[in-house]
Amino acid sequence: MKKTKHSLLLIILVLIILVSTLTATAQQKPFTLDDLIPGGKSYRAMQPTTMSNIWWGNRLIRLESTKCSILNPGNRWGTLAEQQDVKDAMTANGLDAKGCPSMGGAKFPDATRSELLLQNDKYLLLYDWKLKKLTNYIAFKSAASWHDYCPAAGMVAYNRDNNLYIAKTNRSGNDDEALQVSFDGSHDIVYGQSVHRNEFGITKGTFWSPDGKHLCFYRMDQSMVPDYPLVDIAHRIAQPQPIKYPMAGQPSHKVSIGVYNVKSKETVWLETGDNTNQYYCGITWSPDSRKIYLYNLNRDQNHARLLQFDVSTGRQEKMLMEERHAKYVEPQHGLTFLPWDNDKFIYWSEQSGYDNLYLYSLKQGRALRNLTQGHKGGVVLDLLGFNATQHSIIVSTTWAAPLQHNLYSVNVDNGQATQLDEGQGVHSAKLSPDGSQIIDSWTSPDVPRKVDLVHTTTDKRVTLLENYGQWKGHAVPEITCGILKAADGKTDLYYRLVKPVHFDPKKKYPAIIYVYGGPHTRLVNASWGYGYRGWEIYMAQLGYVMFILDGRGSSERGRDFENVTFQHLGTEEMHDQMRGVEFLKSLPYVDATRLGVHGWSFGGFMTTDLMLTYPEVFKAGVAGGPVIDWRLYEVMYGERYMDTPQTNPDGYRDNNLCLRAGNLKGRLLIVFGYNDPVCVPQHTLSFLRACADAGTHPDLFTYPGAEHNMTGHDRVHLYEHITRYFEDHLK
Amino acid sequence: MKKTKHSLLLIILVLIILVSTLTATAQQKPFTLDDLIPGGKSYRAMQPTTMSNIWWGNRLIRLESTKCSILNPGNRWGTLAEQQDVKDAMTANGLDAKGCPSMGGAKFPDATRSELLLQNDKYLLLYDWKLKKLTNYIAFKSAASWHDYCPAAGMVAYNRDNNLYIAKTNRSGNDDEALQVSFDGSHDIVYGQSVHRNEFGITKGTFWSPDGKHLCFYRMDQSMVPDYPLVDIAHRIAQPQPIKYPMAGQPSHKVSIGVYNVKSKETVWLETGDNTNQYYCGITWSPDSRKIYLYNLNRDQNHARLLQFDVSTGRQEKMLMEERHAKYVEPQHGLTFLPWDNDKFIYWSEQSGYDNLYLYSLKQGRALRNLTQGHKGGVVLDLLGFNATQHSIIVSTTWAAPLQHNLYSVNVDNGQATQLDEGQGVHSAKLSPDGSQIIDSWTSPDVPRKVDLVHTTTDKRVTLLENYGQWKGHAVPEITCGILKAADGKTDLYYRLVKPVHFDPKKKYPAIIYVYGGPHTRLVNASWGYGYRGWEIYMAQLGYVMFILDGRGSSERGRDFENVTFQHLGTEEMHDQMRGVEFLKSLPYVDATRLGVHGWSFGGFMTTDLMLTYPEVFKAGVAGGPVIDWRLYEVMYGERYMDTPQTNPDGYRDNNLCLRAGNLKGRLLIVFGYNDPVCVPQHTLSFLRACADAGTHPDLFTYPGAEHNMTGHDRVHLYEHITRYFEDHLK
Repeated sequence: MKKTKHSLLLIILVLIILVSTLTATAQQKPFTLDDLIPGGKSYRAMQPTTMSNIWWGNRLIRLESTKCSILNPGNRWGTLAEQQDVKDAMTANGLDAKGCPSMGGAKFPDATRSELLLQNDKYLLLYDWKLKKLTNYIAFKSAASWHDYCPAAGMVAYNRDNNLYIAKTNRSGNDDEALQVSFDGSHDIVYGQSVHRNEFGITKGTFWSPDGKHLCFYRMDQSMVPDYPLVDIAHRIAQPQPIKYPMAGQPSHKVSIGVYNVKSKETVWLETGDNTNQYYCGITWSPDSRKIYLYNLNRDQNHARLLQFDVSTGRQEKMLMEERHAKYVEPQHGLTFLPWDNDKFIYWSEQSGYDNLYLYSLKQGRALRNLTQGHKGGVVLDLLGFNATQHSIIVSTTWAAPLQHNLYSVNVDNGQATQLDEGQGVHSAKLSPDGSQIIDSWTSPDVPRKVDLVHTTTDKRVTLLENYGQWKGHAVPEITCGILKAADGKTDLYYRLVKPVHFDPKKKYPAIIYVYGGPHTRLVNASWGYGYRGWEIYMAQLGYVMFILDGRGSSERGRDFENVTFQHLGTEEMHDQMRGVEFLKSLPYVDATRLGVHGWSFGGFMTTDLMLTYPEVFKAGVAGGPVIDWRLYEVMYGERYMDTPQTNPDGYRDNNLCLRAGNLKGRLLIVFGYNDPVCVPQHTLSFLRACADAGTHPDLFTYPGAEHNMTGHDRVHLYEHITRYFEDHLK
Repeated sequence: MKKTKHSLLLIILVLIILVSTLTATAQQKPFTLDDLIPGGKSYRAMQPTTMSNIWWGNRLIRLESTKCSILNPGNRWGTLAEQQDVKDAMTANGLDAKGCPSMGGAKFPDATRSELLLQNDKYLLLYDWKLKKLTNYIAFKSAASWHDYCPAAGMVAYNRDNNLYIAKTNRSGNDDEALQVSFDGSHDIVYGQSVHRNEFGITKGTFWSPDGKHLCFYRMDQSMVPDYPLVDIAHRIAQPQPIKYPMAGQPSHKVSIGVYNVKSKETVWLETGDNTNQYYCGITWSPDSRKIYLYNLNRDQNHARLLQFDVSTGRQEKMLMEERHAKYVEPQHGLTFLPWDNDKFIYWSEQSGYDNLYLYSLKQGRALRNLTQGHKGGVVLDLLGFNATQHSIIVSTTWAAPLQHNLYSVNVDNGQATQLDEGQGVHSAKLSPDGSQIIDSWTSPDVPRKVDLVHTTTDKRVTLLENYGQWKGHAVPEITCGILKAADGKTDLYYRLVKPVHFDPKKKYPAIIYVYGGPHTRLVNASWGYGYRGWEIYMAQLGYVMFILDGRGSSERGRDFENVTFQHLGTEEMHDQMRGVEFLKSLPYVDATRLGVHGWSFGGFMTTDLMLTYPEVFKAGVAGGPVIDWRLYEVMYGERYMDTPQTNPDGYRDNNLCLRAGNLKGRLLIVFGYNDPVCVPQHTLSFLRACADAGTHPDLFTYPGAEHNMTGHDRVHLYEHITRYFEDHLK
């Protein structure tokens, strides 16, 4: 364990000159797309093994689909429970064992009981692995769309047909006697589901109070939101599949927040005021179960207010603080109360320009300090939890280097940060409930995967798993990472460069830029092969140079790095990608007449925009599920970055690709999921209409039944298709 | 005028060796697709001029968009009416002259009045060109979907919002006082519109009695037919565009026939019996307006009954005759009463194996004779009308030669046929009401277009127009016509062969088959360039051999030639096309490794089927709006040829292209209209799904807003796209 210095940028310089160990050697067999693409038949077998873990108290559990294992002293895995035993227990209770949930999703709700929780849309099972029997279960009469189990209440909340129900689990049987919390659920009004299209860190719609006596839930009235008419062709005759889709500048849904008292069976509504054009996120219970805190963000997303409500009356008691920004603020996290001091909670803010954690005192009614200050240019990525004994928080950050995710313990009392890993790579960790141990799954440019068990208070780190996958005997390209200056002339941008397998510096190769470019994502990091995607390896085999650059607007680099794109999504992002083009053109082995570009979603937008804006540069491109016209994108994401079509007409016009359809010169393939509920088919279809009118000729493919991303073996088919397109038009 | 001989097949032999005059010469400028494709910017200017004519009594009228001219003695055109005068008259009546209908659609309802009728969805105008004023008009309150004007009644029937209305035209104003005939019209129940998806010769849904006192109309209850969910993207957010679409083997709509008495305002319903799975077509009024005749065809389409109904009671009085066939019968025409003998009518039948006209006597209650017998192997195409003085009918037939349409006068009393043209080419004619004159618009392999005025009782034929278009100075390919034996080894099939411009017999050229192959269509005939399509000229310029063969199953060759495809659409048609492939391979200048295929609709089905059935033969294909799975096609057309999926599972399976998606080897582009209500998008989408599952890779394009065929400039874009595809993958 090393004390961290604030500026560890030195490490990134080491990474940059570090040439990946994945260097090609001759006479090695090629990868197939099935080897390289998730969903491929041989993909799982080829990849470095990883491990799914969960804590049962401070005991480490390993989850597999048919069994759970426990880490015993001496770091040896012992079987805890087999799925077959659960099935036998189900049979003994007259349940259909074929419907047994996978053990991969097992939860361990109570550290004091030898009981695991399994759920799927048919069953909720509490299974005692010592007694080898079901202690409690519910067999749902009809499929529930999700469950939210509360150990304290011994109850589970769930949604069926857009209404909210609560069933007790301290008995066994079906959910006939479930409490029905709402009654007017419909296509227009939905209860207990995630709202605001999963923006603002919202991933669910029910929130149990710590004491299990109340259930807080969202109600979303979307009657004023039109349906987008998706079509499901997997019927004898195709069926309408309408989804509510609020488009930028159009009427949006209205959200209310109810609190259901399980005992009185009454619902109190939080007095949020007029909920027109308001967002509510970060819902947090006070430790004593008497207050609810949430952020209220205006539709313009430039003013967030942290509010306190009284649970018994629903009354809005006070505004704890507020945050504004001329462009946008983006509350993504709820509050986290200190386990040892219920007066104080931690909240997140980007007000310094970078995500930091702040301490707030309810009694003093103010923020006390920035807990993570001083780590300039780095951001906090995750708050894993606490070591209450030591008064420390465990966080994941980019403090060590911009491409890395490293683990730190930060003392809440004195702010001292202690690095918990070796200072390299990308770490993804789960903290044990008492904060004493971390299961750390990590990777670095030359480490495919390691899973280490780390003690947070000692130097002790034990490697439980280390694996390189089945890559030996294959021809692997050289993958490097480097820095370019952004179009602003000052900001460092990181790229990944994949050279062709059996690279010959005297040859000229075609090059393809893979691009995303949008917020909340980055493509280059300090993981194995700098975060390579399998398709890059495949294309390198076929003799392409692959280039990936995270421009301004992408994530983990702070507020101003991201919001430079405000009101004109696409423009600055393209300027940065063109710096990448300049770099590629400077490479003696890149054939500048054969440049291609490919991206999906925001990257599909970027691909199309680049093809239309720089028609002389790109010979071929493949845009997947692209945004074409931000007016057709949804309210919450779209308006954050673009405001509304009414208030920002120039921005919407400038990057409305339909208006520039006539610029298309190179070959452009557009692919979309025919049932895409995220970036609806109207984008691509509008562009096709515009191209037909303008006399230009994109190419097209679609996957009926697929949503925003191709999954399963469709994804292999997709990359076969994309590869063929570049082979047709770029080779 | 020459007496015709029954077998004029000799003429076709002359045609076959006749090399088109469109022979290429050097140093000529190329055509653009805009020159060659309907909808192209220069298309109209390039084509041979034609003429739109109509009769006003026995005076010939020429219609243009802004004026009507009349043929005066000495064959000189004089202006009859200018649209500007109509507009002035509209303005004088307080109407919006901008809504003035085109003069191209003028009708001349009364030979005794100097009055023309103009209609569009806003106005119905009766304009007196001598008085230069509106004699009557209706300004519709809201758009009517069509009009059916009855001069005898001075009334117009029209449909609005699926209900039927009748407005008087012997007054001027709006349609406030219109009679509302039906009241429960809806998406499910429609009145006065064409039924049975325009099959069985049905083109409209209202039928005025000769005396104008009754209106017969269709009522279609399609509540049991599911919607196909088309989507209209030309809105701020895409809108559902559901259409009723009965798929093969599924529930179909039910049709009733009402007769509305304009005076009593009461509707009598024809007693057709249970209308489940029944078709009603050929609706015909008796000359005395007291009876209605129609064909009742069962859903299996193998049994047609000609029925007589009493108009005053709706009672079904008798069955006049019936026709059966083991495969199908296909009544396509109503009855035509002899103007000089109301006891007798002419009806159509294919019972001899070829379409002929028969005479029926109501008094005798039986068919008297075949009026057109003896013309073996030829079919009657059209009954233009009568020369009552001479007791003759004027017909268009293929008697002279299988590729021709020629005009004949046939004496009803003695059956003697007299040819009214020179015995060549394809004639399209309109007979004057008294039967004395024909305006004959015709073409032959070396005559682009002639319009002749013909006197039916004398030899007199005056050419009013002769035009070759703007083709001089262009490089034109050689187009020839020839005969191949069908796959049955005996049937003659006709093909068109287009050689590359600047043909060099020592070179090897790629060849493309353009195919339709389905019923009711033929592609090769004795018109200019043997019925060439503009795209063939374009491809010939680019160095392709183009080949078009009308196989068995296509039209104008008689019943058995067509119905050989029964229950297994695609199979025999492909066998015949493969005879064409053999022929192409035998040509020394065709490169057999570069064969392509293209077709639309049934031809798109054929293209896809050929690519999957003969994957080693075709290197590239383009299928437009294809049928992929006949289960997804509609009831009336689909079941006629395929029966139902329940009764003919093998036939449906054998040509369900989804099941053979894995066979795809060559390059196949599928193009469809995104709003195609005929061959719904589910065909193509199902195939894409099947290909993704099978690991094969078709290519795709679609035109949002387009229906079954691309129209306007989209059609030029389409052929740019198709051409590029062959240039990419076949050149």
